[in-house]
Amino acid sequence: VADKRYLFTPGPTPVPPQVLEAMSRPIIHHRSSDFREILQRTFDRLRDIYRTEGDVLVFTSSGTGGMESAISNLTRPGDRVVVVSAGHFGERWAAMAQKFGCEVDTIGYEWGETPSSDDLSARLSETGGAKVVFLTHSETSTGVVADVQGLAAVAKEAGALVVVDAVSSLGAVPLETDSWGLDAVVSGSQKALMTPPGLATVSVSSDAWAAVEKDAPGRYYFDWQETRERQEQFDPAFTPAVSIVVGLDVALGLLLEEGLEQAFERHTRLGRACRAGVRAMGLELFSPDDDRSAVVTAINAPDGIDSSELVQTLRDRQGIVLAPGQGPLKGKVFRIGHIGYYDVFDITTALAGVELVLAELGADIERGAAITAALEAFEHTRV
Amino acid sequence: VADKRYLFTPGPTPVPPQVLEAMSRPIIHHRSSDFREILQRTFDRLRDIYRTEGDVLVFTSSGTGGMESAISNLTRPGDRVVVVSAGHFGERWAAMAQKFGCEVDTIGYEWGETPSSDDLSARLSETGGAKVVFLTHSETSTGVVADVQGLAAVAKEAGALVVVDAVSSLGAVPLETDSWGLDAVVSGSQKALMTPPGLATVSVSSDAWAAVEKDAPGRYYFDWQETRERQEQFDPAFTPAVSIVVGLDVALGLLLEEGLEQAFERHTRLGRACRAGVRAMGLELFSPDDDRSAVVTAINAPDGIDSSELVQTLRDRQGIVLAPGQGPLKGKVFRIGHIGYYDVFDITTALAGVELVLAELGADIERGAAITAALEAFEHTRV
Repeated sequence: VADKRYLFTPGPTPVPPQVLEAMSRPIIHHRSSDFREILQRTFDRLRDIYRTEGDVLVFTSSGTGGMESAISNLTRPGDRVVVVSAGHFGERWAAMAQKFGCEVDTIGYEWGETPSSDDLSARLSETGGAKVVFLTHSETSTGVVADVQGLAAVAKEAGALVVVDAVSSLGAVPLETDSWGLDAVVSGSQKALMTPPGLATVSVSSDAWAAVEKDAPGRYYFDWQETRERQEQFDPAFTPAVSIVVGLDVALGLLLEEGLEQAFERHTRLGRACRAGVRAMGLELFSPDDDRSAVVTAINAPDGIDSSELVQTLRDRQGIVLAPGQGPLKGKVFRIGHIGYYDVFDITTALAGVELVLAELGADIERGAAITAALEAFEHTRV
Repeated sequence: VADKRYLFTPGPTPVPPQVLEAMSRPIIHHRSSDFREILQRTFDRLRDIYRTEGDVLVFTSSGTGGMESAISNLTRPGDRVVVVSAGHFGERWAAMAQKFGCEVDTIGYEWGETPSSDDLSARLSETGGAKVVFLTHSETSTGVVADVQGLAAVAKEAGALVVVDAVSSLGAVPLETDSWGLDAVVSGSQKALMTPPGLATVSVSSDAWAAVEKDAPGRYYFDWQETRERQEQFDPAFTPAVSIVVGLDVALGLLLEEGLEQAFERHTRLGRACRAGVRAMGLELFSPDDDRSAVVTAINAPDGIDSSELVQTLRDRQGIVLAPGQGPLKGKVFRIGHIGYYDVFDITTALAGVELVLAELGADIERGAAITAALEAFEHTRV
């Protein structure tokens, strides 16, 4: 049927029917006892998924709003910060920190490279450290998932606070907020957390709280302290996106019911299946072919094919929605997201659509091999 | 049945089933052509409802985020601004402007008073004007709807920009962005616009655009210029709350189908009905008894009754959710909202519940009179 859609982007991701159903119930008041119960459970579930005993703050905003909150609460103009950047979202950290007056030292990699702890360690010792190091866990623009544990260790060693963009990784690949010593971890509702966009979540460590200058000027909506005080009373500072919180509560319940370890394993196997299928078709991976990069797979478009046109054609002819390349990768790569409410048949559908449309566009690809390869990689490579 | 709920607060307000249904469909991508069509129509409908030919920017945040955007885009630290304040949300303007470093001159009224244009005019001429005057259209904490047209005229006369909090008024009572010369008008999805919370909308006049210092530091997520540029390409700067935009599109369609003038008349009559019923019960109005104040009715709790307890009892025993008093009115008043997806039988249900619970609590009230008075006021006082 003409309007059937398949959403295979790295966010927004498909929302489970149970979540959509909960969100379609009559709206409730954000200061009612009905909502209080939902809020309390949601905060508890977020702590479980973040693997933290500390606070997880919830803001009504996109993930970028959560990122801004980390900058405006942890830095003052003139502070020296380091940004490790290897793609679109690393560049966003740098741009935002500059906007808030930080002296930004960027360790810049080519898009698609994997940041190294040694580079970070060397830079921090050369320059005498930094107040905050900003990291990107899953660089959604390239498919690279960085070794945040290793990077955080050298940053902490140098006395810096560690802030992580885990918008597309939280719930998909392992992240240990407390045991890795992460001071603030930003995520969003619309990726592996299987909920529509509209909420940012931010964990805050005790070291981070100690660094927050109380009542400093220049922030209000994203003020951490006010948000925490009001969350502790289950009395939100500002009207939250009630229906999205209701959905998030249900989605986090589904994720915890599956089990975090099981979800991580599923994502690892989905990533393997996607990469095996892509290779079997004769296409070239842009994302690294490693098990950590289990969030989104970036693929080089075949010679003579513009990847943005491929994505548009897939959407128009087959109802399959993939993500095009961003920035310097525009026209060059296309991306298949495989996080959240996602199983192996989503991979095979995505691969089948890509195969069909590339063949129609006259690309030189292997027909009939991708799906079997993907299914085998999924079934026979348990973690 | 034990869990049937009646939501009669001034936000969130009841969401029409058509809106909930649209929001419960599978999520779509925010950079797809499906969403582009919805965005375009939503921006057009917002301009119709704002009565403006100018830009209406949409942010994923509560209304407070929209308010912050007006401050961070229109002022720089040290700017002199005037806040007209007569309740909770007037105080919020002042607190936010102070946080962003403005020199804030507050014209402060007792909660429940109606601001006067003469006072504003006198203050502006005494003090040599201001860069921005911040107004509250509907002061949700007291039920007062201010004469924004008159206040704006004197502010413009004095050369100030006029910024209006119309979060609970837009779509319920007349507001003319362009013909009243309003430079920025902030609203939210969850009041008379009949959509769940999560989106703030902000109109920006050409005078306001001229006052925005391009690329000024200290803002990123709420930057107006970036938001406008990306909206013009229907390519949102950050992932918007897709499902709430989908809902808002449908809700604005319903509002425009009813007709704005018809909606204003309905709200006027709902306000009259509510006040007539309250008086017939022998209760005392805290909100002014005038047709402009058609958003929410604040009512003094009878002697010996704590209004917060009344609200809690109504919720626990009858499933009816009203709003308690805020700030200095805590325990003293309770508030019945009557905006959005709301008809006269919502008024009679609210009044019936109040009558029942007040009688149970032993208050000296007139039984059996409120509902007839409300119905008569609604039917026989067409505007």
